Amino acid sequence: MTDREEKAKAYFQCDTRDRAIFEAGIKMGTIYHQFVGVPVDLSSVDILERSIERGVLVQPYVESVSVRIDRSHFRSKKDEYDYVSLTGNMLDVTLSIRIDDVRVIAEMRYVKELNYPLMFISGVE
Amino acid sequence: MTDREEKAKAYFQCDTRDRAIFEAGIKMGTIYHQFVGVPVDLSSVDILERSIERGVLVQPYVESVSVRIDRSHFRSKKDEYDYVSLTGNMLDVTLSIRIDDVRVIAEMRYVKELNYPLMFISGVE
Amino acid sequence: MTDREEKAKAYFQCDTRDRAIFEAGIKMGTIYHQFVGVPVDLSSVDILERSIERGVLVQPYVESVSVRIDRSHFRSKKDEYDYVSLTGNMLDVTLSIRIDDVRVIAEMRYVKELNYPLMFISGVE
Amino acid sequence: MTDREEKAKAYFQCDTRDRAIFEAGIKMGTIYHQFVGVPVDLSSVDILERSIERGVLVQPYVESVSVRIDRSHFRSKKDEYDYVSLTGNMLDVTLSIRIDDVRVIAEMRYVKELNYPLMFISGVE
Repeated sequence: MTDREEKAKAYFQCDTRDRAIFEAGIKMGTIYHQFVGVPVDLSSVDILERSIERGVLVQPYVESVSVRIDRSHFRSKKDEYDYVSLTGNMLDVTLSIRIDDVRVIAEMRYVKELNYPLMFISGVE
Repeated sequence: MTDREEKAKAYFQCDTRDRAIFEAGIKMGTIYHQFVGVPVDLSSVDILERSIERGVLVQPYVESVSVRIDRSHFRSKKDEYDYVSLTGNMLDVTLSIRIDDVRVIAEMRYVKELNYPLMFISGVE
Repeated sequence: MTDREEKAKAYFQCDTRDRAIFEAGIKMGTIYHQFVGVPVDLSSVDILERSIERGVLVQPYVESVSVRIDRSHFRSKKDEYDYVSLTGNMLDVTLSIRIDDVRVIAEMRYVKELNYPLMFISGVE
Repeated sequence: MTDREEKAKAYFQCDTRDRAIFEAGIKMGTIYHQFVGVPVDLSSVDILERSIERGVLVQPYVESVSVRIDRSHFRSKKDEYDYVSLTGNMLDVTLSIRIDDVRVIAEMRYVKELNYPLMFISGVE
C-alpha cells in the first residue's frame, strides 16, 4: 500500500468489506451517469462498451468489469437520425472490486418486473 | 415496503448494512459524474447546489444530502468567458442513506494531502 | 468588448451571424449531454428546469433561455424506485443568442413525426 | 434525402450553410459535456479518443472528426489514485460537418492566452 492509499484509508470509519462495497457502488453510479446520453449505433457500440470498461478500470480497486449494451434498442440505419442515446435500461454490467482479501461482485441490469435498471450486489467473498 | 421494493431486495446477496453502503456509493458516483462539467459562476452556484441535492434525494433510500461548491475556484466576472465548469475538486458533499434501521453517512471532499476528491464513509449506525 | 473577447473572435474564420449560430448549437449540445441522466420526479423538476437555464445563461452570448421538462413521462410516487432519468425526449428548450446586432433563436423539442428530439434554428434577426 | 430528413429540414428557418454551422456547434457541446469527467490514464486514453470520435460520427451530418487528449495532464501511475478526470482543457478536436454542398470545419482547443477551451469555426466551404 502506498503512503497515499494509507492516508485515504484513514478517512473511512468502517472495515475493508464496507469499503469494497462502497467502491462498487461508486463505480455503478459512475458508469450510469457518465455514459448515459452517448450517441450510439451498431457501428460504435463495441468500442463504447470497451471504452466504458477501460474508464472504470482506471478507478481505484477495480479488479475486472464487463459492460454489455443491449442492441435491441437500436434502430436500423436508414438516415442521419437513426441512432439512439445510451440509456440506463440498455446497460448490463458486472464488476469486481478487490481490496486486500475482500472481493465484491456487483451487477447492473434492467429488471423487467421492476421496470428499473437495478444495481445490486451479487456476491461478497 | 412495497411489492417492488421487496422484489428488488431479493436481488441482493448481502445484508441491509451492505445495501445501505452500496447505495451511498452509487449516490456519490452519481453526483460526481452527472454534474461535473456544468457551467457555473457566482450567479448560478446556489441553484446548482440545490438542484444537485434534489436530484440525489429522488434516488432510493436517501435520507438527507448537503452539497457545497467551493467558490474559490470561480473567476470574477469581467467578460463572456468568465465562468468555470464544475470539477470534482470543487465538491463538498455529505449524505445520509437510510434502509430499515441502518443509517450510513458518506462524504466527498477534496483532500489536499491526496490531491484527490475522496469519497468515504464517515459513519454507520 | 474585452481584450479577451477580441482575441477569441480572431479565431473565427466566419462572420458574426455564423458565430451566433455556432454558439446556439453549442448550447443545445450542452443542455442535452450535460443533463440527460439526471434523476427527476415531480418534487425536483421545477428546480432542475431553473438550474439548467442558469447553467446555460453563464455560457457566452446567451440572451435568454427557457427550459421545460415534459412531466407526462414521470411516474406517480409509490415507492423508492418511482422516478425517472431525464431523457432528451422530455426536453423543450428555446434560447436566444445575441452577438453584436445578430440574434439567433434556437429550439429543441421532441418531434413525434421524426421520433427524435430535434434541435433547430427558428429565427435569425 | 429520406422523407424524415426532408421533414427535419422544414423546421429550420435558415439556409444550408447556417444549418451546417449549427450542427457543428451541437457536436462540440456534445463532446465537451458528455465526456468531461470520464476517468482516464495512459492505459485508457487511446480507446477514449476513438470512442469519442465514434460517438460523434453517429450524429447527423458529421463527415469526419479527430479527437486528441493532452496527456501532459496525466499522472504517472504509482497507486490506485493516479488517474485524472477528463477536463475540457485537455481536449483538442477538429471536425467536419457536411450538408449538401456546404462543409464546415470547427475546432476546439485550449487557448492559453484566453485560459479557455475555445470552440471556433476555422472554415466554411
